[in-house]
Amino acid sequence: MKKASIGIGLMGLGVVAGQTARILLDRDKVRILSDYVGTQIELRKVKVIAADLERPLAKEIDPRLLTTDEEDFFNTKDIDIVVEAIGGENPPFGYLKRALRSGRRIVTSNKEVIAKHGIELWSLAQENNVSLYYEASVGGGIPLIMPFQRDLIANRINSIHAIINGTTNYILTRMAKEGVDFSAALKKAQELGYAEANPRNDVEGIDATYKLAILASLAFHCQVRPDDIYCEGITKLTSRDFRYASELGFAVKLLAIGKQDDHSIQVRVHPVFIPEDVLLAEVDGVFNAVQVEGDLVGKVIFYGQGAGAYPTSSAVVADIASAAKDVLYATGAGSGLKPEAGKHIRPMSELVTSYYLRMETADQPGVLAQISQVLGTNLISIKSVIQKETNAETGHAEIVLMTYPAQEKAMQTALSELKRLPVMVQVGNFVRVEDIK
Amino acid sequence: MKKASIGIGLMGLGVVAGQTARILLDRDKVRILSDYVGTQIELRKVKVIAADLERPLAKEIDPRLLTTDEEDFFNTKDIDIVVEAIGGENPPFGYLKRALRSGRRIVTSNKEVIAKHGIELWSLAQENNVSLYYEASVGGGIPLIMPFQRDLIANRINSIHAIINGTTNYILTRMAKEGVDFSAALKKAQELGYAEANPRNDVEGIDATYKLAILASLAFHCQVRPDDIYCEGITKLTSRDFRYASELGFAVKLLAIGKQDDHSIQVRVHPVFIPEDVLLAEVDGVFNAVQVEGDLVGKVIFYGQGAGAYPTSSAVVADIASAAKDVLYATGAGSGLKPEAGKHIRPMSELVTSYYLRMETADQPGVLAQISQVLGTNLISIKSVIQKETNAETGHAEIVLMTYPAQEKAMQTALSELKRLPVMVQVGNFVRVEDIK
Repeated sequence: MKKASIGIGLMGLGVVAGQTARILLDRDKVRILSDYVGTQIELRKVKVIAADLERPLAKEIDPRLLTTDEEDFFNTKDIDIVVEAIGGENPPFGYLKRALRSGRRIVTSNKEVIAKHGIELWSLAQENNVSLYYEASVGGGIPLIMPFQRDLIANRINSIHAIINGTTNYILTRMAKEGVDFSAALKKAQELGYAEANPRNDVEGIDATYKLAILASLAFHCQVRPDDIYCEGITKLTSRDFRYASELGFAVKLLAIGKQDDHSIQVRVHPVFIPEDVLLAEVDGVFNAVQVEGDLVGKVIFYGQGAGAYPTSSAVVADIASAAKDVLYATGAGSGLKPEAGKHIRPMSELVTSYYLRMETADQPGVLAQISQVLGTNLISIKSVIQKETNAETGHAEIVLMTYPAQEKAMQTALSELKRLPVMVQVGNFVRVEDIK
Repeated sequence: MKKASIGIGLMGLGVVAGQTARILLDRDKVRILSDYVGTQIELRKVKVIAADLERPLAKEIDPRLLTTDEEDFFNTKDIDIVVEAIGGENPPFGYLKRALRSGRRIVTSNKEVIAKHGIELWSLAQENNVSLYYEASVGGGIPLIMPFQRDLIANRINSIHAIINGTTNYILTRMAKEGVDFSAALKKAQELGYAEANPRNDVEGIDATYKLAILASLAFHCQVRPDDIYCEGITKLTSRDFRYASELGFAVKLLAIGKQDDHSIQVRVHPVFIPEDVLLAEVDGVFNAVQVEGDLVGKVIFYGQGAGAYPTSSAVVADIASAAKDVLYATGAGSGLKPEAGKHIRPMSELVTSYYLRMETADQPGVLAQISQVLGTNLISIKSVIQKETNAETGHAEIVLMTYPAQEKAMQTALSELKRLPVMVQVGNFVRVEDIK
């Protein structure tokens, strides 16, 4: 039954793919890996683009292993597992389909493809009786996909609360600890290589929606697409919000949240206030943490570096080992992404939560009464109010309030009514309060 | 290839076994599980002792499923997987060997058997080409065994720092937060059912050595037995130690520590001072957390409830699912516990770390000079000293000091010399400082 060796075809030679290649060319690492699998693992071909050939690593690799030609890559004999670490939706989606159709197991670190096309790829894997691994697509080297697919399988997952984007968590940590504003913190993140020149995907929460789509699909056994997820980034947060949050006993985090009740799920990515004494509030810098609550297991948290060549390649290589065992034992696709029927995604307007509201108003009597009236007619009760002294320069007053739980729809109506009040200069920000333990 | 159904034989009907039985008799849970595996899972026999038959649960189970007879249990047809959740070394060790010899896959929550006989069981599993799962043996429902066996497989693990015993962490948390002494905190833990009437196994650190033996064997690919582990419990800690720790910026935890360098490993369980701003310092109450550092993945932390019927059964059932897939695909034993040669366990005397020392002395001039001299001749440098006012009642002075890193052997020599000083009333406590981030 056992094959003498198992061949790997690697696609890409960027940060993650490059480190994966380094591991697959490292004798000690490959020996441990081969021992673990029970047969020899061998890197047999690397699909690159012309620009990759200029990388220092490309010069270290036997030129016969490198190809820029897709046909050449897929026609290489004895590739049992295709490892894709190119990133982005296309061409990787096409490559992965082709790999599955040709009967290869696949391993990918590509969150966008899995988030958008995971179910389709899984069906294709089923049809071809091969497996599909994507541990590296979420949370770098932190074990997340496999725990959902295996370790928590007996659980009904009630909720996921995840700090799942290192760039934004780094920015928010700096804003909290140093009192700087968003733009200064972003600049620092860019200098350190934690944020890209065009940071939109991270700071607008898009990257987090990909990851939440993957985790929620697994956790809730249904199909959650990135477009199903309510998404709001961190660009509106100011240093004032952090000061008030701290005064009120909260930390500010960008959370990816998934919750399940009997017939529906909610999925959303946005900044939240969370109590400053919960563990997620202590997750600082580029670290990620995923808190999961299951009916049996209770609360579990997975914490670690969510990105970077080394951590991500750790997950890619673990997946290669699993895929190799599947080759060896002729194991099929598994049921990891099989969606169940009958669950719908609740619209954001139905969310019920508490809110933090910061407003700049005219400095005159009766302002608070007008605000209270707008909230009251929308059935929103005020829990506490902080009224700061008038700003000497602008002559405006700042009012910060916290509400009791209210419906998002009512809050949105109230917000537009508040904005129309003649005494309102601007609604500085509003942030949802997440009730986690 | 596919079997129409897979039969489970359960051994035990206590806390964990009982909850496992409940899940295996719950239609919804079994349907999800069977869907996941790809074939029907069925509980076919439960081995109990006479006393178990008095449990309320026993009355709910079809009497034909229950047996008190070992022969009857092992002769039951169509048991593919034996699940042992009796606990304790014997008779479970014998049962597990018998199950493996009869070609059954095994799942166990038994930390003592795995810690003491894991390698032997794994060899027997190899011989019989069947698999062996024990996720529930460490950390309740927190995924730990599988992450070490799969997700971190590409890593060289440098260190493990684990809060792995809920009873002691509960006691230490109460001592830290409420200033009570050990005995009062233990009493409270017993009232709440977090500590047993005879708490020795927990408070002396023995339970933690079982779990560390299992984790270290996996992490370092070598055989670590409970007896190889230096072990010191928490009974000597007093409320004063917590007060001083807090003054000095430390938290006090019972840690299970494993570290690896090129040729040797160190394994130890004892109370430590850790910086109060690291995440492990925030792990309170009965929760467990395991911090692992790997060369690729960096620092990862796994956090959750380390005990209890529900969390532990979550892990047992996940293992049943994996074992069932192995039955379906005729997968063998894997290489999880294969020990590598050439690693030795360093004696505790070679440890180098900083120390906290609390001493009660005569209140007279020159005491500190005498203490400094003893430490100095043993090449131990003092980092800081706190000298408290004389106790009016006893007329004794209290001196607390922190050292720079020194060798354990030197420290032990210094301690016995200090105890012999005429001015020394008693060495109240000494605690090692663990340098973690």
